Amino acid sequence: MTMTRNDCLARDANDPLAAFRSRFALPQGVIYLDGNSLGARPVAVAARLSRAVEQEWGEDLIRSWNSADWIGLPTRVGDKIGRLIGAHPGETVVADSTSVNLFKVLAVALGLRPGRRRIVSQRDNFPTDLYMAQGLAAFLGQGHEVVMLPDDPDADAVVAALDGETAVLMLTHVNYRTGRIHDMARLTAAAHAAGAVVIWDLAHSAGALPVDLNAAEADFAVGCGYKYLNGGPGAPAFVWVAARHQQSVVQPLSGWMGHAAPFAFEAEYTPAGGISRYLCGTPSVLATTALECAVDLLLEADMETIRDKSLALTGLFIERVEACCPQLTLASPRDPAIRGSQVSFHHAQGYALMQALIARGVIGDFRAPDIVRFGFTPLYTSYREVWDAVEILSELLESGAWDRPEFHARAAVT
Amino acid sequence: MTMTRNDCLARDANDPLAAFRSRFALPQGVIYLDGNSLGARPVAVAARLSRAVEQEWGEDLIRSWNSADWIGLPTRVGDKIGRLIGAHPGETVVADSTSVNLFKVLAVALGLRPGRRRIVSQRDNFPTDLYMAQGLAAFLGQGHEVVMLPDDPDADAVVAALDGETAVLMLTHVNYRTGRIHDMARLTAAAHAAGAVVIWDLAHSAGALPVDLNAAEADFAVGCGYKYLNGGPGAPAFVWVAARHQQSVVQPLSGWMGHAAPFAFEAEYTPAGGISRYLCGTPSVLATTALECAVDLLLEADMETIRDKSLALTGLFIERVEACCPQLTLASPRDPAIRGSQVSFHHAQGYALMQALIARGVIGDFRAPDIVRFGFTPLYTSYREVWDAVEILSELLESGAWDRPEFHARAAVT
Repeated sequence: MTMTRNDCLARDANDPLAAFRSRFALPQGVIYLDGNSLGARPVAVAARLSRAVEQEWGEDLIRSWNSADWIGLPTRVGDKIGRLIGAHPGETVVADSTSVNLFKVLAVALGLRPGRRRIVSQRDNFPTDLYMAQGLAAFLGQGHEVVMLPDDPDADAVVAALDGETAVLMLTHVNYRTGRIHDMARLTAAAHAAGAVVIWDLAHSAGALPVDLNAAEADFAVGCGYKYLNGGPGAPAFVWVAARHQQSVVQPLSGWMGHAAPFAFEAEYTPAGGISRYLCGTPSVLATTALECAVDLLLEADMETIRDKSLALTGLFIERVEACCPQLTLASPRDPAIRGSQVSFHHAQGYALMQALIARGVIGDFRAPDIVRFGFTPLYTSYREVWDAVEILSELLESGAWDRPEFHARAAVT
Repeated sequence: MTMTRNDCLARDANDPLAAFRSRFALPQGVIYLDGNSLGARPVAVAARLSRAVEQEWGEDLIRSWNSADWIGLPTRVGDKIGRLIGAHPGETVVADSTSVNLFKVLAVALGLRPGRRRIVSQRDNFPTDLYMAQGLAAFLGQGHEVVMLPDDPDADAVVAALDGETAVLMLTHVNYRTGRIHDMARLTAAAHAAGAVVIWDLAHSAGALPVDLNAAEADFAVGCGYKYLNGGPGAPAFVWVAARHQQSVVQPLSGWMGHAAPFAFEAEYTPAGGISRYLCGTPSVLATTALECAVDLLLEADMETIRDKSLALTGLFIERVEACCPQLTLASPRDPAIRGSQVSFHHAQGYALMQALIARGVIGDFRAPDIVRFGFTPLYTSYREVWDAVEILSELLESGAWDRPEFHARAAVT
């Protein structure tokens, strides 16, 4: 079945998520396919943040810790995110960055497997995950090794890497470059069979597709607030710890907000009983408030409906690019069952091509060395936009208009 | 010389900082003496944050990392704060929380003194500093010990505690309970003489009084964005590292924003050359933007002028309380040379007394077990307010109106 642009318009008209589009502030003349890097702004965030700034901070000042329940923000928003990832209440907390949270859970995970020295991951895990593991291993100085499987390993390759020396399997559920989804349940079970624990990075999963950490019997997870959760640039991250692990090893970033009684101002650290012990310093109230507002919007939708539309959008994009842009090679899984909410293609001059595309109003991003990456957010991306984006991409490739010096000049952030 | 309320009004009329008062949004009917816990909101933050939300995030989206220089925020705001604390450009960066930053510099400090096992601090250091050191020591498992001197030690007591086993002297420059100022230059020199390095927590110093880290030849410092810097609730913190230490030991929270080339997406961590290596995950753009706006306002004033007024305010407060409130015992230094920008008193029922005071519109705070604490921010606190606050306090104590059940009921946050 070949679609037409009119078919796209018809699908938009029948889209059960269509009403969400107006809940996001999107610029005119732009097709935004980069919500996997920075989610678009929910309209409601502006007023919510103004209230936090003007009323809660400006008028109520320090009293807002109680009156506006600032103190409850991290666990309240954590539990809301928990509903998107198969968490039970009390297993998720918003805190710090994904990187810092990874350090916490990795430290605890190693503590749970004191005799083992291998941290198994993959070379194309998101770099900060690898860097944090490397930093932790070097700091401990106990001979821990970060084993990096070759790029984009399938499940068999991961399972084969697990052995009696493996303390932790540390993977990102949806690969940031290719969008490939790991089989969380199978790999968790395999890790457990090898006597290891598992850390899942949900940066490209939470809010993008259904996740069920407890069904998979996962151990630890971290994730990002500013991608599919739309929490704003550099939004706080979250950390999930299975209830069975919460009373075990104490995480080493033992700041006062994770103390059992922060306002007793005791000189010795006593960890809070539950997930709150994964808090460290004072959380950013403004940033967490913006994130809460965005998560509230996401919770109005149904993750299965989001997933259905996501696969329809990515499937259409692949079909159209392969039909119109022979210069590009698919880097993402063709099989929808293992494809996240993004599609990537290889192009030798991907950086310049993406700059040219952005100049034409189609915003995706580039990931070294040769990936052009497009994210699809079902709450605000339309079928018509997918069609038009490929038309523009095809026209650029056909005309060679992307290959100009100004598009090759590298900016600080790609 | 005994002041009158009219004298206070006259001093306000001649206050060289008087014009700053209108630059802050302060509620009607409140005397706010808690800027040492949460600084009041600069008026300009509301519009600045709206621009960040509506234009930078909403309209320009991911492009703002370059076009709005989001990527430069942490070092740019770091250098601005650096001007308040005697830093050279390139020595200060805004990142994470004070607690997390303390972990970074403490880890590096221990790495610089590998043969030594003592971390010397004091029992009434701010608890999170102690907790972070305890967490780090336990995690390393190498026998490091956090030595806590008794409360409020003088310089001689600190110097006496330094020995050939001391790796790090870790102190808060201005004590959070008493407001006592440590002699940074003398104690730094003493630590160096013992072969140790020094970490200064500037939570109650930065923006409150002149600080000169380089003149003191300090090694490391951390500090808070939401107290005297007025950066908003839970604002990001800062970390300062003397240039001579920046190329040494790599801090263990080695996230991608501290990488030499974050957007090369390499699999191995290579630290950035300068202070940027103290970054970890993606920073909160909204929170850092609010902080920048607040620091810009502070930089319009002169720290010596701020200090002069601060001492006049705290001196007046002590004089008036001691004249009018015999039920209270001074917990802060009488000597202005070692007094920060706060005044604390002991009262056996301090919690209830403070709740009653807040109900009457005078906002200070309580610190366990028996401290009522009052912060003075020269940019927005007037002499008239000091006078009136003591009148209200005195009236409450005289009448016994503070001793009602509702004022004894503990809230989540004190």
